[in-house]
Amino acid sequence: MNAILVLHGPNLNLLGEREPEVYGRTTLAEIDDRLAALATELGVAVDCFQSNHEGELIDRIQAGRGRVGAIVVNAGGFTHTSVALRDALASADVPVVEVHLSNIHRREDFRHDSLVAGVSLGQICGFGPESYLLGLRAAATAMRGRSA
Amino acid sequence: MNAILVLHGPNLNLLGEREPEVYGRTTLAEIDDRLAALATELGVAVDCFQSNHEGELIDRIQAGRGRVGAIVVNAGGFTHTSVALRDALASADVPVVEVHLSNIHRREDFRHDSLVAGVSLGQICGFGPESYLLGLRAAATAMRGRSA
Amino acid sequence: MNAILVLHGPNLNLLGEREPEVYGRTTLAEIDDRLAALATELGVAVDCFQSNHEGELIDRIQAGRGRVGAIVVNAGGFTHTSVALRDALASADVPVVEVHLSNIHRREDFRHDSLVAGVSLGQICGFGPESYLLGLRAAATAMRGRSA
Amino acid sequence: MNAILVLHGPNLNLLGEREPEVYGRTTLAEIDDRLAALATELGVAVDCFQSNHEGELIDRIQAGRGRVGAIVVNAGGFTHTSVALRDALASADVPVVEVHLSNIHRREDFRHDSLVAGVSLGQICGFGPESYLLGLRAAATAMRGRSA
Amino acid sequence: MNAILVLHGPNLNLLGEREPEVYGRTTLAEIDDRLAALATELGVAVDCFQSNHEGELIDRIQAGRGRVGAIVVNAGGFTHTSVALRDALASADVPVVEVHLSNIHRREDFRHDSLVAGVSLGQICGFGPESYLLGLRAAATAMRGRSA
Amino acid sequence: MNAILVLHGPNLNLLGEREPEVYGRTTLAEIDDRLAALATELGVAVDCFQSNHEGELIDRIQAGRGRVGAIVVNAGGFTHTSVALRDALASADVPVVEVHLSNIHRREDFRHDSLVAGVSLGQICGFGPESYLLGLRAAATAMRGRSA
Amino acid sequence: MNAILVLHGPNLNLLGEREPEVYGRTTLAEIDDRLAALATELGVAVDCFQSNHEGELIDRIQAGRGRVGAIVVNAGGFTHTSVALRDALASADVPVVEVHLSNIHRREDFRHDSLVAGVSLGQICGFGPESYLLGLRAAATAMRGRSA
Amino acid sequence: MNAILVLHGPNLNLLGEREPEVYGRTTLAEIDDRLAALATELGVAVDCFQSNHEGELIDRIQAGRGRVGAIVVNAGGFTHTSVALRDALASADVPVVEVHLSNIHRREDFRHDSLVAGVSLGQICGFGPESYLLGLRAAATAMRGRSA
Amino acid sequence: MNAILVLHGPNLNLLGEREPEVYGRTTLAEIDDRLAALATELGVAVDCFQSNHEGELIDRIQAGRGRVGAIVVNAGGFTHTSVALRDALASADVPVVEVHLSNIHRREDFRHDSLVAGVSLGQICGFGPESYLLGLRAAATAMRGRSA
Amino acid sequence: MNAILVLHGPNLNLLGEREPEVYGRTTLAEIDDRLAALATELGVAVDCFQSNHEGELIDRIQAGRGRVGAIVVNAGGFTHTSVALRDALASADVPVVEVHLSNIHRREDFRHDSLVAGVSLGQICGFGPESYLLGLRAAATAMRGRSA
Amino acid sequence: MNAILVLHGPNLNLLGEREPEVYGRTTLAEIDDRLAALATELGVAVDCFQSNHEGELIDRIQAGRGRVGAIVVNAGGFTHTSVALRDALASADVPVVEVHLSNIHRREDFRHDSLVAGVSLGQICGFGPESYLLGLRAAATAMRGRSA
Amino acid sequence: MNAILVLHGPNLNLLGEREPEVYGRTTLAEIDDRLAALATELGVAVDCFQSNHEGELIDRIQAGRGRVGAIVVNAGGFTHTSVALRDALASADVPVVEVHLSNIHRREDFRHDSLVAGVSLGQICGFGPESYLLGLRAAATAMRGRSA
Repeated sequence: MNAILVLHGPNLNLLGEREPEVYGRTTLAEIDDRLAALATELGVAVDCFQSNHEGELIDRIQAGRGRVGAIVVNAGGFTHTSVALRDALASADVPVVEVHLSNIHRREDFRHDSLVAGVSLGQICGFGPESYLLGLRAAATAMRGRSA
Repeated sequence: MNAILVLHGPNLNLLGEREPEVYGRTTLAEIDDRLAALATELGVAVDCFQSNHEGELIDRIQAGRGRVGAIVVNAGGFTHTSVALRDALASADVPVVEVHLSNIHRREDFRHDSLVAGVSLGQICGFGPESYLLGLRAAATAMRGRSA
Repeated sequence: MNAILVLHGPNLNLLGEREPEVYGRTTLAEIDDRLAALATELGVAVDCFQSNHEGELIDRIQAGRGRVGAIVVNAGGFTHTSVALRDALASADVPVVEVHLSNIHRREDFRHDSLVAGVSLGQICGFGPESYLLGLRAAATAMRGRSA
Repeated sequence: MNAILVLHGPNLNLLGEREPEVYGRTTLAEIDDRLAALATELGVAVDCFQSNHEGELIDRIQAGRGRVGAIVVNAGGFTHTSVALRDALASADVPVVEVHLSNIHRREDFRHDSLVAGVSLGQICGFGPESYLLGLRAAATAMRGRSA
Repeated sequence: MNAILVLHGPNLNLLGEREPEVYGRTTLAEIDDRLAALATELGVAVDCFQSNHEGELIDRIQAGRGRVGAIVVNAGGFTHTSVALRDALASADVPVVEVHLSNIHRREDFRHDSLVAGVSLGQICGFGPESYLLGLRAAATAMRGRSA
Repeated sequence: MNAILVLHGPNLNLLGEREPEVYGRTTLAEIDDRLAALATELGVAVDCFQSNHEGELIDRIQAGRGRVGAIVVNAGGFTHTSVALRDALASADVPVVEVHLSNIHRREDFRHDSLVAGVSLGQICGFGPESYLLGLRAAATAMRGRSA
Repeated sequence: MNAILVLHGPNLNLLGEREPEVYGRTTLAEIDDRLAALATELGVAVDCFQSNHEGELIDRIQAGRGRVGAIVVNAGGFTHTSVALRDALASADVPVVEVHLSNIHRREDFRHDSLVAGVSLGQICGFGPESYLLGLRAAATAMRGRSA
Repeated sequence: MNAILVLHGPNLNLLGEREPEVYGRTTLAEIDDRLAALATELGVAVDCFQSNHEGELIDRIQAGRGRVGAIVVNAGGFTHTSVALRDALASADVPVVEVHLSNIHRREDFRHDSLVAGVSLGQICGFGPESYLLGLRAAATAMRGRSA
Repeated sequence: MNAILVLHGPNLNLLGEREPEVYGRTTLAEIDDRLAALATELGVAVDCFQSNHEGELIDRIQAGRGRVGAIVVNAGGFTHTSVALRDALASADVPVVEVHLSNIHRREDFRHDSLVAGVSLGQICGFGPESYLLGLRAAATAMRGRSA
Repeated sequence: MNAILVLHGPNLNLLGEREPEVYGRTTLAEIDDRLAALATELGVAVDCFQSNHEGELIDRIQAGRGRVGAIVVNAGGFTHTSVALRDALASADVPVVEVHLSNIHRREDFRHDSLVAGVSLGQICGFGPESYLLGLRAAATAMRGRSA
Repeated sequence: MNAILVLHGPNLNLLGEREPEVYGRTTLAEIDDRLAALATELGVAVDCFQSNHEGELIDRIQAGRGRVGAIVVNAGGFTHTSVALRDALASADVPVVEVHLSNIHRREDFRHDSLVAGVSLGQICGFGPESYLLGLRAAATAMRGRSA
Repeated sequence: MNAILVLHGPNLNLLGEREPEVYGRTTLAEIDDRLAALATELGVAVDCFQSNHEGELIDRIQAGRGRVGAIVVNAGGFTHTSVALRDALASADVPVVEVHLSNIHRREDFRHDSLVAGVSLGQICGFGPESYLLGLRAAATAMRGRSA
């Protein structure tokens, strides 16, 4: 139960090439490497998964039931539109940490509201790849608090 | 043309374990069994399908064209967000009965509006697994009215 | 405590003559007869009442306290405007099943929101007179669940 | 079928004493007298009824079915709040002329929208007691057009 | 000061040919003739003017200052969009009667609000050409009340 | 002219049994007794009336014209929906004090806006039965200020 | 713990001179005197404080923790804009009675919503200086109920 | 880089059978044939793809990076709901031409806003299959302008 | 009846000099020339007209009745504000094609809604001068479809 | 290029007679005289123009291109409704100073939003005729800053 | 009574260094010097005060009662949020001139509405430091008009 | 320039005692200690300041100009209401990290929008005291990125 599932939503596989002025130049593989390194430092396991398919993200969340102790999720465009993903996260019954590379509150209006927020412990956004690292720290703390 | 397609949307496969205080403790398999029993009693065939993938639900609706005589649908989170699913149901050109386990009108604001409602004969919500059974009765009646 | 009160709101006494393309051709007396037959089948008592007066409907709900075990209500136009009726239903402290002949979610905007929904177990709408029969089934189940 | 029903809603019995700066000093009896005189001139029968009870107004509309050929209605405060009264007028299936003493479009915001308007042939407002007389003329014309 | 100015807004010159299912088959010339006949009966002068140009309507209102005793106006599409026309009517400082052929409250949402209403004595809509005749009666009464 | 009319709206006759966690356990009769006692202390007469019928409350307000010097009103559910009741209170032309047992501003959104407030001297809410007593004090003061 | 803190928000120090047609002619000192007299009658201590500085009002609320048993607050303009003041009142953890001289529900739209209401026992508004006296009564009752 | 990707969203595979009164009787295969013919005429390559799965459409857009020079997209129901698809189109960094068979601005309110529009060069809607052909012309021009 | 009327609304006469970063550098005369050339190719007549006066545009639409077989209209700023122009287009009773140089859905909010759209066959926007050429093609097709 | 164009919108020709309690008693001719005098003092040329026709105002703005160095505009009722006028001002490409006689922010809601503001350097309102004089000073400064 | 109070709200002390692209490079001291020079020219006294504390601005307004004849106020961020400051200005009972360096109507939505506007004679915005000088002129005129 | 200013807004001095179910039991002094320890670890200086006074927070931000290299701010209730604080943070011209103890997106509606977010690099909320520590890490990284 000490694995932390890190979910990357649609288009995040393009990180580093897609609109770099908004999302930066680090690739997703580099982020996953940095997450793995930090996980080792924090003494937790980390499991990263990216998909452009809403259904696959939901399947993965469900597959983690009983094995995953916390979730760090950057749902990308699904953040603002997917009630189904929100319901899947809610049913996971573990602490959820919502992260975003950009500060969603300063972008288009339709990016201000997050359906994920309603089922998350907290939100970290705006710090580029560091958002994930801070999110992993927060998730590790929350997971420990739970198992204590 | 006397088969009734019963569609279960995202996360309904978790029924019985996911947030039981909202959705009850009956599993989806048990519901499907009760639907099959009632179908026999009503003299209709029933075909149940669950998916977490919006596209698979749409594919299934399209696959039923010319064979399915009515649809009972609990679209889960897609109820409130999927215009594509709504369009698929509209193009099926058979009576659609919308069902929900919980009373969606008493939950979060974003669950009050249903895109499915706009293309359905009627809506049944709030009675837990019994919503499906009542929905099957309504669908059977509507299918008969059509073929008469 | 095993009587089910069935309330018919304003203009439902005209059923069968009023706007038949929206509400169908069955009369209210015929619906009450079918409800009585189904009640016998389900082993419950049923008590039907129609009024065009909001106050009379409230009085009747209050009069049933301690004797009525569930309520099936089609509040007609009061559905969308009567906080007083809603408060009366809430104070009845028995399961309330909201029914409508037409699918209110496909009609004028002002018919989409139901004040009754906020105090009801569930809602059944769009199936014509069958909405009542399905509602009676749901109410009987709920009443039994309560007394169990 | 050549009677025109004239309905006066709540508080109109106080006409002449209630807020005369808004509603003028003519009493309801005087208006009814002037309506009767004009009806004679136009060769129609007129039947005036006032009530503070929404239910009684609905009952009266229903009682006129098959006998009343047109309705002139000043629904007072019910104009903006009563879906039930609107439904009763719709089911009457005769031309409805909506009248108001004051210009409701220049008063408080909650008086701008009329539920009655949605089921009326037309609206006449702002001319004090003359609104009724103009309304009777319009109703007589419409009734004749129908029976022609 | 006993002339009544009757203003016809844009597209009303097409009356009788344009969308007859909405606006009827009477031509504008026929309406003006009926208005002239009624004016004679009521002992007032009437002056009719149509334009598709907002500016010409405003010029005409201004030109009538000191000579026109009341205005009957069907501003057509300008009803909902022209603050300038509203200001011109307000500055005329005589009773304004707003008329419409159709019941604007039953049509598209953008036709529900009238800028003209805010500076008018009252509104008459929905009675086809008769709306003008009723409007002329109301204007004649108001003009007399003023000069009394 | 020194009688104070105390109006209790729909469902208040159930006070003490209906949703006691919201409305408390004191009955309406007990409140009326405490009002009578305070009235004696303040040297005013008090006249209490409850009804579930909007029309009866309006009739009672009208019947008090010329005899009642102030009104204390808890309109219950009608507070938020009855323009007719508001108009009746406005036409009474005496100080109106609006009271509520619960703090309506902390409850459901549809209870935040009061149509009664627009025609009242002031509002007292949230203090349970004491709201009535404070309201009677305010009404007595206002009535005295008027007759002075 | 039996002191009642009475807070006067911005501009209330001008009472008696500032817009007397809205706020009356009594000065704040006179109100404080009347409050002191009533406090003696009710057997409670009263501590009055006015400031035009949001921060000073918050400091004062915090300073009263453990010593103040109830708060009567007229937050003036801060009522509608200060989340910080609301949070301070919430953290005080004693009954809060909100008072206003004028009936805020009849004034500009931006005065209809009160942030203070969400953390108050109840609200009294519209009775001029008497609002404070009624508020003190309500606060004394609530404080007693708590310590009982 | 001179291929133009033509994307058909959900339910467009049913074209010709689904709601022909809205979408016409031409099949998708026929449209693809006409697009191929026009492409030859314009001297560009065209690559058509249909899916009911949002994720597959996103995958296809990503797969075209570096090879596709322009995109013509009819996103069907995803037009109004998919931020993920919008982000994928934005990251493609080639001219996007949005097309629709029907005039989306004349249909249900929820079809008026297009998330795709925010990342498209322009929009063509309402001309049935010809919308695609006009869209291909516009895309070819834009692609040439870019490579020039 | 085979002439296509092309209407250019306010400020389009400045094309080529006015805000070229939004509207491009082609002049209106050049666009009219390209339209004439394409018309010859398509075998239709084209008649171009520009005005800054709403009334003149309406007059021109009316003058074309019985002679013009289709309309291509870029109403400029009137697109979003002129109900009168919309009504004139509706009464023309021929296919209307709405065109815009820029993609109005990506500009200021007040440019997103088009009153013209409600009476048009379709909309083409965002392709600069090519919008007109595509629009002429669509109009020619529609005109032919009609006369067929 | 040192002429300042002063535009007066609809109904401003009536200044001094029209609603003087809102707009004051100074005539437009007197304002133009005071503007001419101040222009001399400031060393700039001034060119005043009034029209009730939106199209004429647009024509005049266009005619000034290359000759007019700044614009002072009181667009009257067009301020809130004319996108076309806004576009004309934007295309003039000189500093625009918006003026109003009355404080538009204290009047009816529909006068609060100004389309002109979006393309103006600044706004001056509420000072009667002095608004124009202050506006001329601001325009002169801005014109100088530009040519510097 | 001939002193004019000039109030500078929060962050205006940073003028010249803070966001110079929005607010310009002139310092607050330079503005105060130019105001003093103009005051001498106009024959009025001027008293300038800056604070980042809402309460201090209110205190200063109150302190000026009976001595200050007009107020020029740039309330900075408080413009849009401070009901308390608005109430203080209203109670000052002298002409208030609202000024802003930038054109607030072209900036973020939350800067469009001004609470100060509701109690001001007029508004001047968008002209940088000159806004203050124009404001002083307007205030001097208004003060003279009052004392005349 | 390597000091990081940590700002605590109103009521945060009560941390540990105020509503612990929302804000936790750690005191502000403990948070400041943990921040100091982490600052040492990260090699940056940290300067903590709490105030209930909006003006003092603004003064402190201004005082840090040229000395502070980044700001971590928990503005408490001012987050949602203070444009002045937002402007002060914007003018500081250093990276701003917004932190909150609770997940503001799951609380009352009025806490969902943050004025601070519009001028911040990013937001961290929902992790209790750890929000500050994560915020300090983010601020340190951003400050280093800047000085690099």
